[in-house]
Amino acid sequence: MKEKKTIRKAQIAEKATKLFLERGYDNTPMSAVAKATGISKAHLYNYFANKEDLLFHIIKTTMHDEFNLILAAAEEISDPEERLRYFVRAYTDLLTEDGRARIMIHDASRLNSIHFSKIAIMWRRTFDLIRGAVSELQKSGKANKLNKNFVAFASLGMISWTFYWFDYSRKESATELSDTYIELLFQGLMK
Amino acid sequence: MKEKKTIRKAQIAEKATKLFLERGYDNTPMSAVAKATGISKAHLYNYFANKEDLLFHIIKTTMHDEFNLILAAAEEISDPEERLRYFVRAYTDLLTEDGRARIMIHDASRLNSIHFSKIAIMWRRTFDLIRGAVSELQKSGKANKLNKNFVAFASLGMISWTFYWFDYSRKESATELSDTYIELLFQGLMK
Repeated sequence: MKEKKTIRKAQIAEKATKLFLERGYDNTPMSAVAKATGISKAHLYNYFANKEDLLFHIIKTTMHDEFNLILAAAEEISDPEERLRYFVRAYTDLLTEDGRARIMIHDASRLNSIHFSKIAIMWRRTFDLIRGAVSELQKSGKANKLNKNFVAFASLGMISWTFYWFDYSRKESATELSDTYIELLFQGLMK
Repeated sequence: MKEKKTIRKAQIAEKATKLFLERGYDNTPMSAVAKATGISKAHLYNYFANKEDLLFHIIKTTMHDEFNLILAAAEEISDPEERLRYFVRAYTDLLTEDGRARIMIHDASRLNSIHFSKIAIMWRRTFDLIRGAVSELQKSGKANKLNKNFVAFASLGMISWTFYWFDYSRKESATELSDTYIELLFQGLMK
């Protein structure tokens, strides 16, 4: 019974994700989600307490099922340069794979403070991963003495921004894109 | 009479900007704007046809009065490296100066298609500025052969992202931040 509910929740979340991406979170009422899933609005509330709860479920699931795997794999890599390269490539791949990952970034500001703080833990872990790798590279004399926090934010910003402009009909360019990010971060634009 | 209306519009826009930054655009009804400006909601519609029209006015004004000056000044600089350095620093300064510039980025997706296309022209000009500078640097053999479009998007993303995390109570770090962006873009992280 519980399993059936889990499957139904996942189906609703999938339809809702599609609607949120097409129309925007704020412009998608629960009635539209109910209509798309073919169940009554009253019944929908058996699965999600409200629209914010549904958004939290979507963001949590994306972060747990996809982003967390990237983070965990990166954290296992002992060499800091390799760790950073791996993360930049994998996170870019996640963002260019489909539009879903944009919800976990762009709409996180719509979460209530309790839900937001749960999501923020994972972003903090991401920030620490980059900052830590930069710090190790600086200690071993391999990296320039730049502000570690700013480098972490700059890297995250450069990659996260992808969802604003990436043409999802041209996914074949994803590898060239992550190559460019890695090159810029590690070598810079200039010869 | 027309001048008086222009001043009143600017006053309303200023109050609305404050509210949009505090509560978010979608969570700020026109009644809240009316209340904050001390005029009736009916009277408010003499100045702005609807909330979207008010948002367009705010974005257009910010872009015209501030962002456009940066762009125009950068376009005057003949040396491509200097042009790019100038733009990165000035755009970072604009974003760290106060939170207002975030509206022109984050809430542009709320504009209707006609208004959005007017704003998009200026973003296109920004993109062309960066892409053109990179292209010149590559032609003269000074820059690595990276994808020009991706470098332009990466630079814009890195800087634009600032509004997501920057601590506006610590503005004194703004110069170090633009230094870091310039360093990353031109030299990269590694020695």
